[in-house]
Amino acid sequence: MSPSFSPSLNIAPTEFAERAERLRAHVAAHGLRGVVLFDNYYILYFSGFAFIPTERPVAFVMSADGEKALFVPRLEVEHAQAQTGFARVDHYVEYPYDPHPMHVLRDTLAALNMAAGPLAADTDGYPWILGYRGPALSAVTGHPVTPVAAHVEDLMAIKSPAEVSLIRESVTWSNLAHRLLQRYTRAGATETEVSARASNEATFAMLDALGGRYAAQSPLGSGAGAGYRGQIGRNSAIPHALEGNIAFRAGDVLVTGASTPMWGYNSELERTMVVGGLPAEGERLFAHMLAAQETAFEALRPGAPCAEVDRAVRAYYQRHDLMRYWKHHTGHAIGLRYHEGPFLDAGDPTVIRPGMVFTVEPGLYAPDLGGFRHSDTVLVTGDGIEFLTYYPRDLASLTIPS
Amino acid sequence: MSPSFSPSLNIAPTEFAERAERLRAHVAAHGLRGVVLFDNYYILYFSGFAFIPTERPVAFVMSADGEKALFVPRLEVEHAQAQTGFARVDHYVEYPYDPHPMHVLRDTLAALNMAAGPLAADTDGYPWILGYRGPALSAVTGHPVTPVAAHVEDLMAIKSPAEVSLIRESVTWSNLAHRLLQRYTRAGATETEVSARASNEATFAMLDALGGRYAAQSPLGSGAGAGYRGQIGRNSAIPHALEGNIAFRAGDVLVTGASTPMWGYNSELERTMVVGGLPAEGERLFAHMLAAQETAFEALRPGAPCAEVDRAVRAYYQRHDLMRYWKHHTGHAIGLRYHEGPFLDAGDPTVIRPGMVFTVEPGLYAPDLGGFRHSDTVLVTGDGIEFLTYYPRDLASLTIPS
Repeated sequence: MSPSFSPSLNIAPTEFAERAERLRAHVAAHGLRGVVLFDNYYILYFSGFAFIPTERPVAFVMSADGEKALFVPRLEVEHAQAQTGFARVDHYVEYPYDPHPMHVLRDTLAALNMAAGPLAADTDGYPWILGYRGPALSAVTGHPVTPVAAHVEDLMAIKSPAEVSLIRESVTWSNLAHRLLQRYTRAGATETEVSARASNEATFAMLDALGGRYAAQSPLGSGAGAGYRGQIGRNSAIPHALEGNIAFRAGDVLVTGASTPMWGYNSELERTMVVGGLPAEGERLFAHMLAAQETAFEALRPGAPCAEVDRAVRAYYQRHDLMRYWKHHTGHAIGLRYHEGPFLDAGDPTVIRPGMVFTVEPGLYAPDLGGFRHSDTVLVTGDGIEFLTYYPRDLASLTIPS
Repeated sequence: MSPSFSPSLNIAPTEFAERAERLRAHVAAHGLRGVVLFDNYYILYFSGFAFIPTERPVAFVMSADGEKALFVPRLEVEHAQAQTGFARVDHYVEYPYDPHPMHVLRDTLAALNMAAGPLAADTDGYPWILGYRGPALSAVTGHPVTPVAAHVEDLMAIKSPAEVSLIRESVTWSNLAHRLLQRYTRAGATETEVSARASNEATFAMLDALGGRYAAQSPLGSGAGAGYRGQIGRNSAIPHALEGNIAFRAGDVLVTGASTPMWGYNSELERTMVVGGLPAEGERLFAHMLAAQETAFEALRPGAPCAEVDRAVRAYYQRHDLMRYWKHHTGHAIGLRYHEGPFLDAGDPTVIRPGMVFTVEPGLYAPDLGGFRHSDTVLVTGDGIEFLTYYPRDLASLTIPS
């Protein structure tokens, strides 16, 4: 036997080929000449090209015959070639320039025999971000565009073993960052210093441990991170607050978040912690939050619609007269995006299938007391769920001495 | 005289009112019943509401009579009220839920007397990000949508004195972060540790100096930051690389970046630094890069088209046989977005006007040697430009002993 090595922390070329073939088959089956994708996450999914989206359009182009091209500005050519190994990386000079990139794109479409026919695309032209202005793809080609984003979303929703491995690896380092966050949090310290210290130490440890195997491949940053996003004390009742520079005080309820992009893939770990202790009403809400999360874990199984999980949680809230503390649904899928579909939401009929990865995070928000929310990342298996996150969930483990 | 205090680091309510009035007048003049904006930066510009965009739609809604509303998911209600002071913050329960948020939006449109008429919008419905799926605004209202993004971009391109003050304040702390980055960079250290140390120390100093006056109001993060984004050694020839964990070596050419969101506003400071020294060819390219930037500074003046600045730089490159090292245009506007229009690009005919703020950053990229690019942020004045960044630009000041 030859020696075995740790697996690479990336997606193999064969898997990219399989993904592209699924998309190609869909496009061909609908009688279309090819497909154009502008979304940076879709491009990453089908090509492995991770980049920071700007006003300069980038596109993944594939014909119904399976011929592929990346379309990039001049300044991304070498970057795109190095990351994807694509034989065809076409470029325009610059945005907006003259001719406009969308007109240069016509040459790529012609070369791939896509100019004459109807095309699929995620959006009808590059979205107007960061001051970009430009014509619709349909205006450039003279053919209406068939929307394909919903199909791409469906493909991305089922994670392969390699994708799950990357999410698992992400969890490990988020767990470390979160452990350090908890260790360094104390009354008088500020969220900024504690988050920075925990995130830096976890990142340095990860880079030393994984060496050159680590690549973030994320437009949102690199390394392990843990913090509070301002959800401290009464502000913890604002689920999507932004970071401030708040100092911790005894009695604060804290809602954390930890994440680590791993070759593009994300996981989510969030915990409710307390500095010192909770009043009786806080203990009651904490216990209900735990029970609501347990309710969701039990309801989350292959074959059930996503809506059923959220309805089970809402039923729990209603049974215990907690709806006044409700602010959001139970969870969402996660992968290359830190939020993605399907959603554990009473309005989402999508059937849960093995290979889906969800966050489970029902919350309770009391304006005078704070917010109560854990988030765990779980994998749907053949007959239930497997926990990918494993940080303690009980109040005693999450209480910081004051 | 009453004592004077340092100005607030934010945008005053009167300025928000002036912005909204300009948009309202445009909408009314075009015979439209009102306007709907979905882009998070446009919403920040007109309301002061900073949030992390997700699959849950958020919209700024204003009637032709000037009545305003924010439309948010349940979980953002208190956050939006606290940040904007808007009398009307309407909400839907959750995404996707039932009814879908876009159908709930109809109630807000009806309440603002906008249901019966043609509307302006930045996009025809919420963009399909992070797994969002939903109908077009025109499908929901039964009226075609008049695009308004280009007008909003034109408004945002001219910065007010308050906006320039925020960009100036951003520059100060980016300058500190960059100074520390240069101080801590040495052969053998890694970009990750040096960036983290410089960014953290600058951020802590800024928070201690500004106290409660500081608010990032940015979806991209908080605090002062400086780093390399992987542009180290030969990788510096890749203009938009992503961060790796590269160790510095003697002879490396480095391209830096420093930025600090200040109540939403960004500045840009980038420098080419070298560890040890440069070979003669490197010194030649560094000198040409400096001269190309000087060429742009001279060409950048009110009344000239943006294209003229870029053409002057290209003419310099052509005169000195440097086009093989060219990869991108001369610069871009900057403000609430780290890139925005207009662009210092040979294809952008926009006339330069006082109050515009641009980055000036022509680059030279030699695959075997590295990249050479400084970026400075400048304000267009009545008769030329004023430098907002002031970090040294000469090679001696940017050489790190090895």
